[in-house]
Amino acid sequence: MAEDHLIYLDGNSLGRLPRRTIERMHAVIEHEWGRRLIRSWREGWFTAPQRLGAKIAQLIGAQPDEVIVADSTSVNFFKLALAALGARPGRRAIVTDDLNFPSDLYLLQAVVKLAGEGYRLEQINSADGLTGPEAALTAALSADTALLTLTHTTFKSGFVYDLPGLTAAAHQAGALALWDLSHTVGALPVDLNAAGVDLAVGCTYKYLNGGPGAPAFIYVRRDLQETLLNPIWGWFGQKGQFDMALTYEPAPGLTRFLSGTPPQLSLAAVEPALDLLLEAGLDRLRAKSVAQTEYLIALWEAWLAPLGVALNSPRDPARRGSHVSLGHPEALRLDRALIEEMDVIPDFRYPDNLRLGVAPLYTRFVDLYDALERLRRVLVERRYEHYPVERPDVT
Amino acid sequence: MAEDHLIYLDGNSLGRLPRRTIERMHAVIEHEWGRRLIRSWREGWFTAPQRLGAKIAQLIGAQPDEVIVADSTSVNFFKLALAALGARPGRRAIVTDDLNFPSDLYLLQAVVKLAGEGYRLEQINSADGLTGPEAALTAALSADTALLTLTHTTFKSGFVYDLPGLTAAAHQAGALALWDLSHTVGALPVDLNAAGVDLAVGCTYKYLNGGPGAPAFIYVRRDLQETLLNPIWGWFGQKGQFDMALTYEPAPGLTRFLSGTPPQLSLAAVEPALDLLLEAGLDRLRAKSVAQTEYLIALWEAWLAPLGVALNSPRDPARRGSHVSLGHPEALRLDRALIEEMDVIPDFRYPDNLRLGVAPLYTRFVDLYDALERLRRVLVERRYEHYPVERPDVT
Repeated sequence: MAEDHLIYLDGNSLGRLPRRTIERMHAVIEHEWGRRLIRSWREGWFTAPQRLGAKIAQLIGAQPDEVIVADSTSVNFFKLALAALGARPGRRAIVTDDLNFPSDLYLLQAVVKLAGEGYRLEQINSADGLTGPEAALTAALSADTALLTLTHTTFKSGFVYDLPGLTAAAHQAGALALWDLSHTVGALPVDLNAAGVDLAVGCTYKYLNGGPGAPAFIYVRRDLQETLLNPIWGWFGQKGQFDMALTYEPAPGLTRFLSGTPPQLSLAAVEPALDLLLEAGLDRLRAKSVAQTEYLIALWEAWLAPLGVALNSPRDPARRGSHVSLGHPEALRLDRALIEEMDVIPDFRYPDNLRLGVAPLYTRFVDLYDALERLRRVLVERRYEHYPVERPDVT
Repeated sequence: MAEDHLIYLDGNSLGRLPRRTIERMHAVIEHEWGRRLIRSWREGWFTAPQRLGAKIAQLIGAQPDEVIVADSTSVNFFKLALAALGARPGRRAIVTDDLNFPSDLYLLQAVVKLAGEGYRLEQINSADGLTGPEAALTAALSADTALLTLTHTTFKSGFVYDLPGLTAAAHQAGALALWDLSHTVGALPVDLNAAGVDLAVGCTYKYLNGGPGAPAFIYVRRDLQETLLNPIWGWFGQKGQFDMALTYEPAPGLTRFLSGTPPQLSLAAVEPALDLLLEAGLDRLRAKSVAQTEYLIALWEAWLAPLGVALNSPRDPARRGSHVSLGHPEALRLDRALIEEMDVIPDFRYPDNLRLGVAPLYTRFVDLYDALERLRRVLVERRYEHYPVERPDVT
């Protein structure tokens, strides 16, 4: 739907609008809400969180009843992190690292505060800011660790953790493992069941193309579902919701992890996008993504490294997600110049990362060639210099 | 948008689709998401929670910076209830009653459990199941009460509490007052500032016509905003969100009560609906609503009371919201017969309530006449008898 000349390399932040989503939204708005009104709840809305979850399950190596969609990634992460502490009484440490999403770190800070006296966050630092400190994370696990939680593909460098290895290490220490798959799902295959992963959350508005702020998913391994307690008890997680009993009793299975009424219009946009991705096939998409990030890195090496641009992503494709970060002291202004003058949309991540997202569903090789050629031009012609050095404020 | 012959009396559960919302949704989907993509965040998406909040503020007697829209009513209620306990250290009781939304009661049960040892919920019972136990609630307030929380207009009977009086009583006891305005906002004027209300939440998919599961609002009185702590710390509530600092620092004002990325498509649908309501004027809508529920009750008295139908709503319009509940042992099957055979959509609330919602923005007097005439016919002709006595399961 975007202008033909636009090169969009920010699908890892907000995925593009699938054509079929337009049609689906027309139906949910004008027919389901407009004409069927309240009856639509029994005609598909009530079961949307589970139905979408079952589709996402196919992308992450989970069973259909192990994934459910509702609320934001943040709210879901909060629920699972608190539930994990409840499931490991007596253990009071959460282990994570500084490459995690800041939002996840804030939530963990909130969770240890809420959990009470003695609970703490053990935040390991990456040595180079690019590579996950896997050995130090493993070493930090102890008999006091309740939870190990990491973002599988880091948002800045695109480093990919050894999910099976770290999950096994957490289990060996008696802890649970909670993975944030926001920069993974829809771009990299991952097999949660094979690795015995306990808990996961993920975003649907990046590689899943579910729309701005689309509801996020929760994964809970089946055998944990009946023992874990969602801390936010709302009527959508209640057993026999419309009995309107006055005392909370969790619904069976993963439905207990719902809270309030799910935002149906935003939910509706997620489904056609998932179908598209399932049709394309994740293995084929990953193969294309690897070829494209390799191509990007080859172009960087030939054109941009000589101009002082660093590679802030792993060289090994097995350890790299679907975006490539380039480092430059003027990254913020380079980002602005590309957007304003070059019809290229990358994104900027503090302090010096120009992040180039490859969304293999719609990114073409020629887009990468053109984008890097234009970036080279911006650097050589110093076109970035007339942009302000300060980021414009959001509000 | 509904069929011309349909009489929709469930606008208190899911408000109808405004024509202008269709146009707005077309723009947010095809232009803002489809064409402007990630740029739309700075072109209106980032400020949508505050912009919509400022409009809702006009409907509830609040300042523009005292209301923000995000997350579900349940998640918002959870945030405020926990924040309230944090703001009243040493006090360990929450006072509420059994006419409250079951969902709010579940959340309060969760909150006292999370808050820890000694925290408790004091749930007062209504003597008749229809009328709020105001005297008993006031008597229950003590030096140990942290919070008084009630649903301003109860979802079953439509009873309306004395909001200024009970808020003053809570303050006299040193407690905070949290009101759920879900069945009030858009139907009854309420003046939170005049009453000195501390906290409120409310739904946007009922009388506000914001769409199925539309995001809910939070009200926090201005002087409390900097002292109350949102328990769910996500990046949208972070000061300088894109600095990506690793330690949580709450954003100024009410923005700190945001957590994750707001669902923009669902948010977008709320705004045109709010504009419509503001144009119509809440005082005029309330006057029409009172005239309509009075008319409904007069028809009930003439036609239905003789057939054994009870009035389960207050007679005094000053104490009645915008719906009327009729009581009948066969209410569940009456509801089914009206929907399946009579093109009337009321709703059923356990165990014996047929709830008739008046949405003065679009409900006509003739709709009420026709609906009650058809209900009379269903009763006289015993048309409900061939429907199952069990409610169909949701899934």
